[in-house]
Amino acid sequence: MDLLLTYDVDTTSPAGQRRLRRVAKLCEGHGLRVQKSVFEIIADEKTLLTLLHDLDQIIDSDTDSIRLYRLPADGFDHVQTLGIAQVQPHRGDLVL
Amino acid sequence: MDLLLTYDVDTTSPAGQRRLRRVAKLCEGHGLRVQKSVFEIIADEKTLLTLLHDLDQIIDSDTDSIRLYRLPADGFDHVQTLGIAQVQPHRGDLVL
Repeated sequence: MDLLLTYDVDTTSPAGQRRLRRVAKLCEGHGLRVQKSVFEIIADEKTLLTLLHDLDQIIDSDTDSIRLYRLPADGFDHVQTLGIAQVQPHRGDLVL
Repeated sequence: MDLLLTYDVDTTSPAGQRRLRRVAKLCEGHGLRVQKSVFEIIADEKTLLTLLHDLDQIIDSDTDSIRLYRLPADGFDHVQTLGIAQVQPHRGDLVL
């Protein structure tokens, strides 16, 4: 399924900056970074549960925020963009 | 329809900081801010077109990025959250 994960991590402390890096690195292993705090992720239920568990271990639940939205099928292909944003290829459907 | 709007605005200049404020203010008129750069928006096609047009007038298309995702029906109600993130009430369905 197509998922959109967005996060706000409080980076006013060095510990927060470390958490941000760890969250970003974890998400990079699961999807494509399309903005500073936005990842497009394709995952099944099991992988999703693991991801949420791992994120929960990293963040400070008193200051940080993670939101995960389920998109319709092929939701990534129907994103509307402005500026430098682009539709990102998933599932190896890039035409070379 | 339920929409998720995310943005990255380059704030390394005072002009960029102004653009960020203008983008946020415009989006606040259309939906709920759920993270620093993420808005949940309910809009019809006409309002959406107007919003995209207005955003396009504000941003610097060489540096800024706006992405707009269409969620399934009641997509906001099925967001999964960690930390301080909460499901936000839309459509006046808040139980008091």
